[in-house]
Amino acid sequence: MTALDSSTTLRSLINERLEELLPKREGLHFLLFEGAHYSLMLPGKRLRPLFLLKVLEDYNIPIEKGLDVACALEMIHTYSLIHDDLPCMDDDDLRRGKPTLHKVFGEGQAVLVGDFLLTYAFEILATCGAPQEITALIAKGAGGHGMIGGQLVDILFEGRPIDWNILEFMYRGKTAALFATALECGALLSGAPQTEQEALKQSGTLFGIAFQMYDDILDVTSTTPSLGKPVGSDAANGKSNCITLLGLEKAKEMAAEFLNEAKSSLPPHCRGVRDLFSL
Amino acid sequence: MTALDSSTTLRSLINERLEELLPKREGLHFLLFEGAHYSLMLPGKRLRPLFLLKVLEDYNIPIEKGLDVACALEMIHTYSLIHDDLPCMDDDDLRRGKPTLHKVFGEGQAVLVGDFLLTYAFEILATCGAPQEITALIAKGAGGHGMIGGQLVDILFEGRPIDWNILEFMYRGKTAALFATALECGALLSGAPQTEQEALKQSGTLFGIAFQMYDDILDVTSTTPSLGKPVGSDAANGKSNCITLLGLEKAKEMAAEFLNEAKSSLPPHCRGVRDLFSL
Repeated sequence: MTALDSSTTLRSLINERLEELLPKREGLHFLLFEGAHYSLMLPGKRLRPLFLLKVLEDYNIPIEKGLDVACALEMIHTYSLIHDDLPCMDDDDLRRGKPTLHKVFGEGQAVLVGDFLLTYAFEILATCGAPQEITALIAKGAGGHGMIGGQLVDILFEGRPIDWNILEFMYRGKTAALFATALECGALLSGAPQTEQEALKQSGTLFGIAFQMYDDILDVTSTTPSLGKPVGSDAANGKSNCITLLGLEKAKEMAAEFLNEAKSSLPPHCRGVRDLFSL
Repeated sequence: MTALDSSTTLRSLINERLEELLPKREGLHFLLFEGAHYSLMLPGKRLRPLFLLKVLEDYNIPIEKGLDVACALEMIHTYSLIHDDLPCMDDDDLRRGKPTLHKVFGEGQAVLVGDFLLTYAFEILATCGAPQEITALIAKGAGGHGMIGGQLVDILFEGRPIDWNILEFMYRGKTAALFATALECGALLSGAPQTEQEALKQSGTLFGIAFQMYDDILDVTSTTPSLGKPVGSDAANGKSNCITLLGLEKAKEMAAEFLNEAKSSLPPHCRGVRDLFSL
């Protein structure tokens, strides 16, 4: 099986399991779970769960051992997008090519659906048989010193000048933390030696920074239909990003450097993960 | 020590531990943790953590065994208040006698501080030495079939006629679920027999319904300074509650019945919990 085949298969497995895990849409809970289903099942790349499962493949561990943890990560990523798109945050109308949740279900429900997906991710983590250390890693990666901390700096510096240190802090938090967590969870579930766990985590951080830089670059060089979300969103929100700070060419160059560093940080036998690093 | 003394001591312990648990307010994380500190340290009754710790006292288990779990519950309660007060939800300006978080720090930050407190609660649960079953119980109680499910029905039925079944569903979710969880966690941490765990959970549910009914009653019979939040909030939001549905006298009568049932459901030796049931 080629790397591409494997990713397609894993993505299907993730999508099927996400569908299975979501509570039944019925009774007075209907609209809550319908909203969760709407956002979660929009066609996404499933990168974070894919990364986790690719680590398992690279260590010859059965996928089943990490599938629910991978799904919990995707739920956390999705909740963060729902809250991030709210009018009081980035105020985005499109996500993954479709209207954002609050445009369809209203803002109050979007807040609650996000809260539900976050809480439900932890319910899954606590009941799927994964060790408690996994829950701790994910709570840290998604938390104040990880994803949420980066998100706050993102909104705090809207319309204000920033330097590279602040921007890197933001990228490390809002984007890189969850990638690093995905690879670290994969390593932990695979029983990888401590040095390889750390290498995978570090590699995830570097990949995440590169990923966010390319995301910023696409925000100015792409078109809305191909991106599935509005382009020029950063500029409209008065946000500084790597392009306003470095210029387009220098930004591309640095993003490529982070990506190369991410690749060279990987344990050599992690070929499946490396294949996913082609941005 | 009288019951009142014990509650005052426990409340101080909870407040001290909450302060200790909150991450240091420094650097680029300053405003995130400052916001969390602001909401969490407003003078609250700390009822949910108190309930948990009272169960431990009633079973002669050292308080330390449940203190961090109790604090995690209070963080979850606080996050729910922050999100509930947002303009897109109940749009309240006052909470615990002070301006709500979004009035002080802005809406975007209020969303993120809520997300942080929820995530951080699970980090604490995963690292404090409590069994994973506790995390599962709390995620369920705070989740779609518990607190969040009730919250959604609350906002969905704004301005629409409801019956008692819908109202009770809402009360069971948005208020009673977390009280039931607090008592059930206390029972589990105390190693109480299964029947007593169930009795404590059931008692928490009944207490929670009574508590929310009295809350609705205070919303029409109290004054803002004594309540610490705006009165008449339900009417202003076009919300049905037990008074619009039953009338004030009948509502008071039913609330008293739920409270009595809550008391009689308790295992007889749970005197500390019963003392807390004086609304």
